[in-house]
Amino acid sequence: MRVLGIDCGAESTGYGVIETDGRQHHLLAEGAIRTSPKQPFAERLRVISDRLAGLLQEWTPDEVVVEEVFFAANAKSALKLGHVRGVALLEAARAGLAVNEYSALEVKSSVVGYGRAEKHQVQRMVQSLLRLPDAPHSEDAADALALCICHAHRALTQKMTQKKMAGAS
Amino acid sequence: MRVLGIDCGAESTGYGVIETDGRQHHLLAEGAIRTSPKQPFAERLRVISDRLAGLLQEWTPDEVVVEEVFFAANAKSALKLGHVRGVALLEAARAGLAVNEYSALEVKSSVVGYGRAEKHQVQRMVQSLLRLPDAPHSEDAADALALCICHAHRALTQKMTQKKMAGAS
Repeated sequence: MRVLGIDCGAESTGYGVIETDGRQHHLLAEGAIRTSPKQPFAERLRVISDRLAGLLQEWTPDEVVVEEVFFAANAKSALKLGHVRGVALLEAARAGLAVNEYSALEVKSSVVGYGRAEKHQVQRMVQSLLRLPDAPHSEDAADALALCICHAHRALTQKMTQKKMAGAS
Repeated sequence: MRVLGIDCGAESTGYGVIETDGRQHHLLAEGAIRTSPKQPFAERLRVISDRLAGLLQEWTPDEVVVEEVFFAANAKSALKLGHVRGVALLEAARAGLAVNEYSALEVKSSVVGYGRAEKHQVQRMVQSLLRLPDAPHSEDAADALALCICHAHRALTQKMTQKKMAGAS
């Protein structure tokens, strides 16, 4: 299964692509889409949208994962984040892919084993689980890869539960 | 000048297209894009995006206007509104059009002459200014047309000010 994780943000949208069987993960791509605050916001959304469309086309993932957002610092930052998230969901829908969402708590629990883990702990675990010589290029890319790994773990658990239930019936 | 106004909302996104010289306005189109809460949110964004792209192509407006949002009832509704607004800004950018933003206060002041006007007062003034036999089909369409009229007034004022300054120099 190939998974694209997107960590939405107006200044920097992290992304990561992995190939995974749920246990072993292989890094295909990672990075961050940065836009200039000097550009009109609509133009920055266009840049993010074009880059995401390009990634979807280049890597043809089977699944897309984004962070579920419950709270935001305030309504203003929620509104801004919502714009970028809207563009990300749109590109996934355009590619015919369903979107999976996990909270930060779920992602940290799944990747680090502790829901309140620090950023650097997430980065280190992502590096370790993907057997990378160095940490991902940016925190946002690490967060996007953590989303991918969380989804991979979840998909494996589901598959195993289904097998177990099929065996029991 | 041809203006497309978009009143963003997850359940219903109102739109209106007018042709205007700043004084006289002529209605070209109005309506609302409704999406089903039963559909996945990403799919609803795709519907809104496709319809807006269609309107931009059909009516080839010179300008796009959306409501500027400062506050939202809470972070959750701000986040949801942000998704739809992000998609609207994206489509405007894709069409190569700049986006004009006005606050609800500015729109009501411009259209009704009173910043705290009620919804039905806005609808009545929109109907009157566009010389329509009936009120617009929905509140959201009326709000979108009010955005168009506000922008038309603003553009005329700017033009007159520029003329005056050119005359004085």
